Amino acid sequence: MLEQVSYYEDYDIGQSRQTVGRTITETDFVVHAGHSGDFFPHHLDAEFCKTLPFGQRIAHGTMVFTIGVGLTATVINPVAFSYGYDRMRFVKPVFIGDTIRSTVEIIAKELMEKRPGFGRVTERLTVTKQTGETALVADHIYMVECRR
Amino acid sequence: MLEQVSYYEDYDIGQSRQTVGRTITETDFVVHAGHSGDFFPHHLDAEFCKTLPFGQRIAHGTMVFTIGVGLTATVINPVAFSYGYDRMRFVKPVFIGDTIRSTVEIIAKELMEKRPGFGRVTERLTVTKQTGETALVADHIYMVECRR
Amino acid sequence: MLEQVSYYEDYDIGQSRQTVGRTITETDFVVHAGHSGDFFPHHLDAEFCKTLPFGQRIAHGTMVFTIGVGLTATVINPVAFSYGYDRMRFVKPVFIGDTIRSTVEIIAKELMEKRPGFGRVTERLTVTKQTGETALVADHIYMVECRR
Amino acid sequence: MLEQVSYYEDYDIGQSRQTVGRTITETDFVVHAGHSGDFFPHHLDAEFCKTLPFGQRIAHGTMVFTIGVGLTATVINPVAFSYGYDRMRFVKPVFIGDTIRSTVEIIAKELMEKRPGFGRVTERLTVTKQTGETALVADHIYMVECRR
Amino acid sequence: MLEQVSYYEDYDIGQSRQTVGRTITETDFVVHAGHSGDFFPHHLDAEFCKTLPFGQRIAHGTMVFTIGVGLTATVINPVAFSYGYDRMRFVKPVFIGDTIRSTVEIIAKELMEKRPGFGRVTERLTVTKQTGETALVADHIYMVECRR
Amino acid sequence: MLEQVSYYEDYDIGQSRQTVGRTITETDFVVHAGHSGDFFPHHLDAEFCKTLPFGQRIAHGTMVFTIGVGLTATVINPVAFSYGYDRMRFVKPVFIGDTIRSTVEIIAKELMEKRPGFGRVTERLTVTKQTGETALVADHIYMVECRR
Repeated sequence: MLEQVSYYEDYDIGQSRQTVGRTITETDFVVHAGHSGDFFPHHLDAEFCKTLPFGQRIAHGTMVFTIGVGLTATVINPVAFSYGYDRMRFVKPVFIGDTIRSTVEIIAKELMEKRPGFGRVTERLTVTKQTGETALVADHIYMVECRR
Repeated sequence: MLEQVSYYEDYDIGQSRQTVGRTITETDFVVHAGHSGDFFPHHLDAEFCKTLPFGQRIAHGTMVFTIGVGLTATVINPVAFSYGYDRMRFVKPVFIGDTIRSTVEIIAKELMEKRPGFGRVTERLTVTKQTGETALVADHIYMVECRR
Repeated sequence: MLEQVSYYEDYDIGQSRQTVGRTITETDFVVHAGHSGDFFPHHLDAEFCKTLPFGQRIAHGTMVFTIGVGLTATVINPVAFSYGYDRMRFVKPVFIGDTIRSTVEIIAKELMEKRPGFGRVTERLTVTKQTGETALVADHIYMVECRR
Repeated sequence: MLEQVSYYEDYDIGQSRQTVGRTITETDFVVHAGHSGDFFPHHLDAEFCKTLPFGQRIAHGTMVFTIGVGLTATVINPVAFSYGYDRMRFVKPVFIGDTIRSTVEIIAKELMEKRPGFGRVTERLTVTKQTGETALVADHIYMVECRR
Repeated sequence: MLEQVSYYEDYDIGQSRQTVGRTITETDFVVHAGHSGDFFPHHLDAEFCKTLPFGQRIAHGTMVFTIGVGLTATVINPVAFSYGYDRMRFVKPVFIGDTIRSTVEIIAKELMEKRPGFGRVTERLTVTKQTGETALVADHIYMVECRR
Repeated sequence: MLEQVSYYEDYDIGQSRQTVGRTITETDFVVHAGHSGDFFPHHLDAEFCKTLPFGQRIAHGTMVFTIGVGLTATVINPVAFSYGYDRMRFVKPVFIGDTIRSTVEIIAKELMEKRPGFGRVTERLTVTKQTGETALVADHIYMVECRR
């Protein structure tokens, strides 16, 4: 983990980086159920899932989001603060054995009128599978200090 | 866990329910770090956090979201499909020892023009702390079958 | 999770309900070993187990019991108190990949002479596998308040 | 872990042994909830528990049983098979921070008429707290081979 | 777990014991990543690993060491203190599904000149796989009280 | 996590870097016991530990090593291979609530006569506590490709 100060002015639209990959295992499914308390059979009952269109257990949306975001957590910017997410969409299901990686790209920035000295930076998170399919997208909104 | 079929027509704006509470423990912090891979010192380094404005470790946003959603996972509606979330905002930080509960309320519904036979239902998730403060809000979008 | 008050008088012999299913994974075996501290090779050593009659790892009895009971934990009755279990029997082994579900049925009730205002209710827990075989049975004894 | 062959004839009524202790932590509570799927607020919601007679979170009965049994899992007897448990009773609640240890004592034995060559041995499990109070008792029934 | 007092004089060079086995599962890989914070793709990304010489995920060295040592933790000697390890070597990789066991052998002992009343005992740990291959070796150094 | 190719020639004696910190929690103690299978009361029995010189539970040596190494796992060097560790020493115990961080420093390098094209690089790992005390040291030996 590295610390790197990036002020509002340092963000350029189009900047992007891609993370390493991580295989989503049956263990992750079980851990996520136990952590979240969501034991819906869509995630944990292989017999029930045989009767559904996908034919197998599908990952919790909150897990794809959590691990997708977690993969990006490699650089600390002490002057940026997470504000929230917009337009999170579950595009394709993630199955046991899929390998995901995340790409983040700066897609918008604007100064915050109500909060002088800060800008709002939007970073699009795209979680993709080894097949090339997109599993999840979400727009991460940061509040970033301006250089003084 | 109960299964209960609710068609698009069964959702009324203003319907709401509140979950039981759950105390967020240091264990949850450590489990979430290990599950997500996000070991930022804001969540895990008590000494570092003494130097920050809050003075203590703060929960991962993805954890407040995951557990907040998990608390609501008590009724399966086999004709509703999670589509995504809009406007997720981290309003107040969650600390070790805080007890959270979730409230969900139907705030919007409309038929899907592009997908006849389905409606779009928006359920607002509000995660509150024992202090009465709001920790997180997010709008959950479902695609729900219409009654035939 | 729902709260529902049921007094002693509300229980009828023969009442029953069945839970959703849950696939017992290798993860559950490993988690249970680490949680209980029981690392017997019957549960964790695939090579050793090849030499046993079943030819594969078998679930801890305490795990089948714990998850079998956990599956039923969906309705809180604030006027019932768990007293203990009688006649717990490990009928058939549970293997990695088996899917279990639980059925509970009220099989007996009687007023408690020594504790006026309370009745003793016996609920039989039966954990079954996807094959239809019974894995575990146990009689759960509750102490339940009478309606006043 | 040691392997030690003990035939039916080797068991004497009154034989007993005591395990090391283990402090039951908040982590164990959270892990057990996630493993069992039982997130009842009696175990996980510190605020709710302040309104109950005990004033604090109490351990799942299945956890006291699981860890109480796990503490005894130090000697493998390849000619003994676990058959089940009788008369499991939750005597006193276990709280976060309590230290438990288990004592097992042979309390009965008899030849199995229906299964020649085997005997039935009953071992009483008593889980005690650092206060000297008994938390749980249960009678473990083994089927043990006779010496030939 | 047993407690057994062994003084410096009780250790003989050549004494050895072997543990039971334990199958290293995908779960252990995921748990170790989450516990250590080491999410290198060599351990967790099955797709990436297909491009490496071994063609599959390989266990963290720290996990083989941790579980290899853990397997030996069955007898407490209250007069011996762990001092450290010398010459730890990762000889062969451990893959998901391998079963390991540990052998420990006393290979050296000498009185500690600087610490009268204590001796230094070296116990070689060898972790082997079901194939007979050695996965890891390390020399554990204990400081042991002399008999008075 | 970043990938950065560093050949043998790129390593200079004296190069060092320090990681972020991580508070070692009771959760880590419990997780490590469950992962390793080492449930010695020195790590898990708070009552027993009150009778020992330190008066409290002390971390498993294998955990301090595992997390200490894990903290450094932020940069992947695809031309370096972990060979083993020398002189690992447990200098000061780690207690629940201590915050550790790791420092690594290149302390030696030499070409490998038996393996042309590779050099042996020794990186000293020092795990320190928030008090400034050293908890663990160990010398990590890498085999690193030479630039061609």
